[in-house]
Amino acid sequence: MIVAKKIFELPEFHATGGRVIKNLRIGWECYGRLNADRSNAILVAHYFSGTSHAAGRYAKDDVYPGYWDVLIGPGKAIDTDRYFVFSADTLVNLNARDPRVVTTGPATIDPDTGRPYGLSFPPVTIADFVAVQKALVDHLGIRKLHAVIGPSMGGLQTLAWAAAYPGMMDRIMPVVCAGEIDAWLIAWLGLWGAPIRADPAWKNGAYAIDAQPAAGLTLALKLITLQANHGQWVDAQFGRAFADEGAAPVDALGNAYKVEAAIAAIAAERASIADANHLLYLVKANQTFAAGPTGTLADLENVRAKTLFLYSSTDQVFRADKARATAAAIAKGGAPVETAEIQGPFGHANGLFAMAPLGDRIADFLSR
Amino acid sequence: MIVAKKIFELPEFHATGGRVIKNLRIGWECYGRLNADRSNAILVAHYFSGTSHAAGRYAKDDVYPGYWDVLIGPGKAIDTDRYFVFSADTLVNLNARDPRVVTTGPATIDPDTGRPYGLSFPPVTIADFVAVQKALVDHLGIRKLHAVIGPSMGGLQTLAWAAAYPGMMDRIMPVVCAGEIDAWLIAWLGLWGAPIRADPAWKNGAYAIDAQPAAGLTLALKLITLQANHGQWVDAQFGRAFADEGAAPVDALGNAYKVEAAIAAIAAERASIADANHLLYLVKANQTFAAGPTGTLADLENVRAKTLFLYSSTDQVFRADKARATAAAIAKGGAPVETAEIQGPFGHANGLFAMAPLGDRIADFLSR
Repeated sequence: MIVAKKIFELPEFHATGGRVIKNLRIGWECYGRLNADRSNAILVAHYFSGTSHAAGRYAKDDVYPGYWDVLIGPGKAIDTDRYFVFSADTLVNLNARDPRVVTTGPATIDPDTGRPYGLSFPPVTIADFVAVQKALVDHLGIRKLHAVIGPSMGGLQTLAWAAAYPGMMDRIMPVVCAGEIDAWLIAWLGLWGAPIRADPAWKNGAYAIDAQPAAGLTLALKLITLQANHGQWVDAQFGRAFADEGAAPVDALGNAYKVEAAIAAIAAERASIADANHLLYLVKANQTFAAGPTGTLADLENVRAKTLFLYSSTDQVFRADKARATAAAIAKGGAPVETAEIQGPFGHANGLFAMAPLGDRIADFLSR
Repeated sequence: MIVAKKIFELPEFHATGGRVIKNLRIGWECYGRLNADRSNAILVAHYFSGTSHAAGRYAKDDVYPGYWDVLIGPGKAIDTDRYFVFSADTLVNLNARDPRVVTTGPATIDPDTGRPYGLSFPPVTIADFVAVQKALVDHLGIRKLHAVIGPSMGGLQTLAWAAAYPGMMDRIMPVVCAGEIDAWLIAWLGLWGAPIRADPAWKNGAYAIDAQPAAGLTLALKLITLQANHGQWVDAQFGRAFADEGAAPVDALGNAYKVEAAIAAIAAERASIADANHLLYLVKANQTFAAGPTGTLADLENVRAKTLFLYSSTDQVFRADKARATAAAIAKGGAPVETAEIQGPFGHANGLFAMAPLGDRIADFLSR
């Protein structure tokens, strides 16, 4: 399945707080075909460090397909012979320097000054991400979505969609997420961004496009990478092997373990296409997440969609007790809710990498 | 109970790797009196960011007593009317700038140069910490300890004691720890130290004593503070309150939540008495922890001491599955092992702050 990025534009967008973003542009992609009455559309919202590339490949020789390719495609659980599946890059997308990503955020050139917005870009929220997607849905002439689905921050968007526009979808599938951001996650999100703020090259957000705070950004991505995984997988993968077999960690302060070198390499690769200010804006959007006016689970009693809530009991970002409380809050409002645990060794990242065994369950949920 | 710091000195100490540390000095304190046959001594080993101040107060008006004061004292579970309880500051103690702490490490003046050792100080290990304590025990004329106990890194020292000197103690009580450091914890420990290495003021460890990398050290201590706690407590304490009631976080990138401000304040206070290089050396000592020659749980089959292993099921530093596997490894060697869960909202820090309900259990264990 070869896919191409499309672009959706809004001449002006009113963000939370009232500020106007001009010439808003986001990328989006789709798999399958919209049917005649436009009733077969499934919107996929992406995770914190993800993009709209949920499935397929941009070119035949791409090493990796989109992140949920195991679920989405012809004959798969989310069957593109049957459904029109689409996804959009969020505002302030982390991977702003990936040529395949189209987003608007602090790294975008401000049409009024000819320079990147930097911190003059307004803080945006998950509700803003959803409002942009809503404009895209309207533009496509879709009046009701077959489903809204997504993992992690994609799950937050799914919940915000369902609470804000309860008549707009028949089903939702939030994955490895929760209906409120608690103090503990607020604090962790803040610490993910802290190394960027501590990097002198950050310059309070006013760095030149070719001189971003790469060290701070890389350290931030190390923290995110480790926290999104789980010890069970990390141990099995690396054990106590040394980064350099001839340089025992006990012999010198600078000698590292293989797991440290591996996380450094992953983070450096991720940093090469990411933007530091975008990461800080994403932290802010997640910290301030609210599915509705109260920012608490009570907002979810507004949901009307049939719900399949998937969680991981080893999740160290959205803990399982929070996921179960979220499912209960939706059920309290009267919507039919099913939950299922994602089995796997990856902790939070089970929502990305351990979804295959749930394929039949998801296919069944979507067809009922 | 008013206590005073004593000093123990070794003219030279041979560290792991063979390097010699001259004029080694560490602080220690004690509660209760050593009996005539020197058979009533309980050694307490301290945690990563702790000191030998396990109980009592240095002065009547001290706000806080030692960290296990709820357990240790006259008539308490670890009854100082009955036992001689003592504890020593480790090598490379984090709180090197606390006037009440005596330690030897990279912040110490190298007698050969007249300047702080910096990174010329040899990497030291948990086994070295234990070897220094062993020298103190010998110096006190104690041939067998009634018990060795301690939380977290103090638990690692307890396990290393019991595996290295199986005939030297009747009992051990390792708390919130495990018998091996896995890849996941190696990686987290490395990330705790990473903000110091990223701070330009670190200067590869060669900073002047009055110009240490305070920003990096403070960020490191934010990470450690958050990871040693648990969402349950953090949420209950802070919720989604703003740092400044009039400055909603959604309004500006710089507006923070109360939990972020609180962790920043705690970390800044801790940083004011800590040394950045010492933190890096502690990271190294913990990453390279080995209770015996293999660095795995098999080393613990050497333990002969009666064991009470206390763990927290919400521990995010030493996971409960690792704690249980450690207890099982000791039992496999034939030593009698009991385990008990510490109930509390603090995660890893249950081993410090939620110990009171276990007092009777501990008193009973020590008297049998």
